[in-house]
Parts: sequence; structure tokens; C-alpha cells
Amino acid sequence: MKIIRATDKKQLALYFKRLISANSRVEAVVKSIIHDVAKNGDKALFKYNYRFDGFKSDKNNLKVTKAELQTATKCVEKEVIDAILIAKANICKFHSKQLKQKYEISVNGALTGIRYLPVSSAGLYVPGGKAVYPSTVLMNVLPAKIAGVKRIVICTPAGKDGTINPVVLAAAKICGVEEIYKTGGAQAVAAMAYGTKLIPKVDKITGPGNIFVATAKKLVFGQVGIDNISGPSEVLIIADKYADPEVTAADILSQAEHDEDATCILVTDSKKLAADTLAAISRQVKSLPKREIADAALKRGCAVLVENMNEAAQISNTFAPEHLQIISRHDRQIFNLINNAGAVFLGKYSPVALGDYIAGTNHVLPTSGTARFSSGLGVEDFIKRISYVKYSKSALKDIYPSLRSLAGAEKLEAHNKSVSIRL
Amino acid sequence: MKIIRATDKKQLALYFKRLISANSRVEAVVKSIIHDVAKNGDKALFKYNYRFDGFKSDKNNLKVTKAELQTATKCVEKEVIDAILIAKANICKFHSKQLKQKYEISVNGALTGIRYLPVSSAGLYVPGGKAVYPSTVLMNVLPAKIAGVKRIVICTPAGKDGTINPVVLAAAKICGVEEIYKTGGAQAVAAMAYGTKLIPKVDKITGPGNIFVATAKKLVFGQVGIDNISGPSEVLIIADKYADPEVTAADILSQAEHDEDATCILVTDSKKLAADTLAAISRQVKSLPKREIADAALKRGCAVLVENMNEAAQISNTFAPEHLQIISRHDRQIFNLINNAGAVFLGKYSPVALGDYIAGTNHVLPTSGTARFSSGLGVEDFIKRISYVKYSKSALKDIYPSLRSLAGAEKLEAHNKSVSIRL
Repeated sequence: MKIIRATDKKQLALYFKRLISANSRVEAVVKSIIHDVAKNGDKALFKYNYRFDGFKSDKNNLKVTKAELQTATKCVEKEVIDAILIAKANICKFHSKQLKQKYEISVNGALTGIRYLPVSSAGLYVPGGKAVYPSTVLMNVLPAKIAGVKRIVICTPAGKDGTINPVVLAAAKICGVEEIYKTGGAQAVAAMAYGTKLIPKVDKITGPGNIFVATAKKLVFGQVGIDNISGPSEVLIIADKYADPEVTAADILSQAEHDEDATCILVTDSKKLAADTLAAISRQVKSLPKREIADAALKRGCAVLVENMNEAAQISNTFAPEHLQIISRHDRQIFNLINNAGAVFLGKYSPVALGDYIAGTNHVLPTSGTARFSSGLGVEDFIKRISYVKYSKSALKDIYPSLRSLAGAEKLEAHNKSVSIRL
Repeated sequence: MKIIRATDKKQLALYFKRLISANSRVEAVVKSIIHDVAKNGDKALFKYNYRFDGFKSDKNNLKVTKAELQTATKCVEKEVIDAILIAKANICKFHSKQLKQKYEISVNGALTGIRYLPVSSAGLYVPGGKAVYPSTVLMNVLPAKIAGVKRIVICTPAGKDGTINPVVLAAAKICGVEEIYKTGGAQAVAAMAYGTKLIPKVDKITGPGNIFVATAKKLVFGQVGIDNISGPSEVLIIADKYADPEVTAADILSQAEHDEDATCILVTDSKKLAADTLAAISRQVKSLPKREIADAALKRGCAVLVENMNEAAQISNTFAPEHLQIISRHDRQIFNLINNAGAVFLGKYSPVALGDYIAGTNHVLPTSGTARFSSGLGVEDFIKRISYVKYSKSALKDIYPSLRSLAGAEKLEAHNKSVSIRL
């Protein structure tokens, strides 16, 4: 990590630049996979499962069986199951508040309203491979459940031996999902979007994934709904001189261990904190099991020196981080200056890990600066608004002169006539 | 229009198939335009404005001037201005109910919450060319205004002479938007997404457009937020034997006059209504100014015969229409069976034109079956959720064992350490 000054706009732009989230080579590969799965269905799916994951799948082993689910749940340690249950309770409590109230406005026979309805089916992508993310199961499934989605599907890649990590399966079972397919990557996204014989298509696909998954989601968007196109994980920490450098260092590392491409940024008005944090990182990283990953990510990170916390907030808004930590006695005031962030962690005792796992907020968050215009996953992602209109004859008569003027201005005579013929 | 039976699944699939919303030729053209504008800015913009609209634009005439806005407002008839004001009032009233309440949950020092914030800037695309859509200005701008978006930009193509329809400008002025650029098509979308010297970039782009605009929106998604990718307009009318065929015919035509590619479907359990509607369409279409457009669209339309209204609702859910009309004495009961639709119009006196213009509901709606997973434009499209977490030391201590179990299951040691170092 390097220390740079906020006034050095050139350096800042360099460090703030996200990795390009797709390129034409990846796009071409993903396009051909999607096309293949849309056309050849399960046959294509089996082929890619073997090619990318080494898993010899067929019509008998693509779907997780009830027996597998039960075995998995049994072999997970009790304390992990208990932790999943606590996380589930907190996530449900937090997300239930996002349910919406329908409304209706009625004035003299002119009635308009909104109904909120869940999508009929949702497909949730849970990354696999070397990493294991039971928490992602909770974060995707529970908002969909709360929204009222009837059919919830999980796709996650299996290992060579056709197994899926038991904690992932246990989390799915605890959340009430039993339709789980052993397939990952672009082929899983394609199957959920277009449907195959074994995997009926869904209406909406959510969840994080690597560049192939992200590119596939972008390409199938329109055919199916998606949440966000996610890139590598990010944290930006705003901290002042009162922050403990051992803590800020640990926070940087907890992001860096996720991914070689993760971005870690410290923004501070204290030159000392910046220097001490960097020193603490160098010490702490040595004992990390995922040191190699963290070291790679740290090369992309920086500490930005600002004049004051106002400037820190502005810098953060420009970056629009996925995770924002504010470690300062004035955390609330600084938070009031924040426009763009996925999730915010306030004060000394709120590490990002709380949101990753158990506080109840969602961890599927906007990356790559998309927090400028999008949000973390929520109940609302699984809900549609349907508006409706019901007029009485007299209400239609009352409004007709105005409607006629507007239809006239747009030269749409049949619009006008669709009213006049009724009166 | 042809009459088909719901049981004839082959015919049904044929008529229900939407025009493919993008093809590789269009995509290649749009990609090169976006690339050009992203790289060469206004120079590219000027070039395409001339190529596609015949408008010789430059740095002095790209932006609508205050004088132009004032002149436009003055030359629009009073009755049109009054109608715009009524529409505005109804749209504001209806959409204001979509504003969201932030919330906070606090238990023993463990605090989580959600803040809702508007995007900082929004770019609204208003189609131009032969058609004039002041109503689209209202439908895009007002939800953004209500959401609290500070900077609202409109892009709309100018005529060869560099003018924009005065009603469009008047509508913009009435809605309080004065940053209007004379540019359309993919180049306008690219400019709003990447920014040029003359058009600073925005965070979110909304609004309907032709295939070039729709494809451009899909391609810039991720760089910027978008609402939906819109295709040609659609109506599906569920009607029983009590419906007046002159009315259903007028409703079909009011959709058909929009676009040669519009889709018009009647679903009924009455053979007589189907036949009479078709006969009435043949009569009514003769007197339409936009007869040629309507005739072209009618070729793609059909009347579907069903056994009962339950089946009608299922057929409609499969099609997931942009506009759904239910003309039946049991309109409310049938509506209760509807899952997928953009906007619903109930009963004899609720033509779609009410929603197009003045009832208050939005007319930017999901097309091409995307109502399965998306909604009409609303205040929520311009609002982001930001979640936050603030724990006390003792709350962090309480939750730590569970968090440690989950981090352990995911083998993320630095996540664990980011908590333990604080305690």
C-alpha cells in the first residue's frame, strides 16, 4: 500500500480506477456458453460442468438429493448451525422492514393504486470453487423468502467428486430451499435464464460471482431480471487520529483476504495513522492463512491523506465504495455527508465482518462504483410494482377535456377516440 | 388480427413471441457509437446528430437556451398547458406515496438501519423524430424530482432545423428541468453514461426509445444505472361477453397507432365478442390518421379464445403484458389472479390512455414480458438503499462466538481477527 495525498488527483485517479469488469475476450467466451446452453440445454451444461469444474454431471446427479441435504446438515458442527440460525433471525428481522404497503387513491370515482407482488421464481448464484460461502446463501435466499417468492433455486458449482460443501447445503436447508443444482459459472446463469429440461427457467437471478458469472448476468439481462453486476470486493475506511492502527490494519486485511483483486483504501487526516496502519498491516499479514491473496490485493490499495473529514467524505463519495467504515468520534456527522456507499460501518466496534455474517444487513452489495446508482440486495429486489387505474364514467367524463388536449398535442387520435367512444 | 384458441399452444407461442429486442448488427453499430462518444466526446456527438437527425450541432446550439424554453412555453396553447398541469398534479400525488421511510433497529447496543438517498443525477431520454411525447417528460422527470434528484438532464433529438417540439420544452419547464440537450439515439445515451465536455455524465439513465436507444442502455448498464430496456408497446385485453366490441376495438387501435411493432391481444371467452371486435377494428381503422402504422401492428395481433376468465388470467400471466385491460363485471376478481403486468386498467371506463397521460400512474412500463420481474418507472428507481451497522463493544462481544463460527466455516481468518482485535 502506498500513501498518497488527496490533492494528487492523478495518483488518486490511478488508485481509484476499478479493474475493468468485462473484456471482449471474456464476453465472447460467455456469449458462446450462453448460446450453447440456450440451444442444447442440459447436454451443454454437463459439458461445461466437466470442463470448468471437473464434475461429471448427468441427469441423475445434477440436482442435490434430499439425502445429501440431510447428511450435510447432520455433519455440520452444532455451533455453526446455531450461528446460522442467529444470522437468519437477524437477517429476517432487518429485511422484513423492507416489505411494502400497497396503496390506493380514490377521488370522485377516479381510482389509482399500486400492488406489490413477488417475482414467481428466483435463481440464486452461490460461488463455489476454493471458497465456501454459506453466508451468501442466507443473504440471497432470505430476502426472496420474505418477499414471498414461491420457487427459489440455488446454483452452485460442485467439486470434482460432485460434492458441495455441507455448510452451504445446511444453510440452504435451514432457509427452506431444496431445489439446488450442481452447476456454476456462465452455464449456470444461462440455464436459469433460458431454462433446460432439468432446470426450469427463473424470472430473476441474483448473487455474486466471478467475472464469468458477472458477464453472463449482464448478457442475459432483459431475458431475465438480475440484481447487480458485481466486481471484486472493496472497503474504504475513513478514520481520524483517534483510530487504533491495529484495528484499521485488521479491517484492511479482512477485505484483502477475499480476493487478489479486492480494493482496500484508508482515508485519513492523520499522517501518523496512515503510517502506523501500514506498519501494522505488514506485521499482521504474516500470520494470515490467506497471506498470498492479501498481499496481492494490498498492492492495489492506498492510504489517502486529506485535510479534514469533509474532504474524506467527498473522496469516499467519488469512490462510492461497496463497504465504508467510519472510525471517528464524529462518525454520525461524517455519515451524514455520505451519498454513495453500499453499506456503512460506524465506530470502533463495527467491523465489516458484522455485515458479512450476522448483523442482519445484506452483504450482496454494489461494487465498482455502482453504489452511485444501486443498492445492496434487499426484499425490494424480488418485488414488482403493478399500478392500476379504475375510473367511473363520470370521472372519465370530467378528465376527458384535458386528456384530449394531451392526445392532440401528441397527434394520437386513436387515444382520443378510445375515450370518446366510451362517453 | 386472427382468432386463435388458447388450446392451440403452437399458434399461441407464435403470436406471443416478442420481436427480438436486439440483434448483433444493431449491437455492433451501437457499440461503435458508444466507443466513439466515450473517446471523442462532443465531436462524435455532433457527427452522429448530423448523420442521424440532420441536425448541425455545435457547442453553441447543443443545449436548449433559456430563451428557447420561454418562447416554447408561450407558444403552446393554454388548454395544453392546463392539461400538463393537471397531469403533473396527479402524477405527483400518485408517485409521492412511493417515498420510503428510513428505519433503524437497535437491541442492546446492536444497531442496524437503512437510509434511502436519491441518486445525485439522472438523465432522461425523451424520444423525438416524428412522434412528440411531452407526456414522457412528465413520466420521467416527476418521479426523479419526488425522489429528490438534484440534477436532472433531458436528452431528446432535434429536427433538422435544430428545434425541439415546443410542447416537450414546455413540459420540461413546467417540471423544473432546464438542462436539455438536443441529441438522441445511442449517442445521447453514451454521452449521459460517459460524459462529454458539454454534457457531464449522470448516475442513472431512464426513459423509452427505439432499438438503438434500448441497445445502448443495455450496453452502458454497469457504467451507469438504467431503468429498463424497453421494446415496442403492448396491450392485452381480457374481456367477457358483456364488453362493448366498439370499445375493445378502440382500445386495440389506441395501442396499434403507436408503432408498427406494437402487439395487441384480446383474450375472451366470447367467440362473438372476438368476431365483433375484429369487425369493429376494420371499420374504425379506416378513419385513423395513423392508419398505416395501425394496420401493420394489427397483423401481429390476435384474439385468443379461452374457456373462462381463470384461463384468461393464466394466459395473460404467461404473456406478461405492458398494459393489461380487464373489461368484465368481475374485473377485481380477475385482477386478483394477475401476477405479471406493467399497468392494469379495470372496467369499462378505464382506457389505457388514462394511464398514458393523466391518471397519475406511470406510463414508462416493462415490455416484452419483462413484467415478470420488473416494474413501471417509479420514485424507487431514483432511490438507493444504504444500510448501516453500529455496534457497542459489549454487543460485539455478545455476537462474537457466532461470528467466529461462521468465519471459521468460510475459512476467513482475517475476518475473525478484525473482531477479536477489538475485544
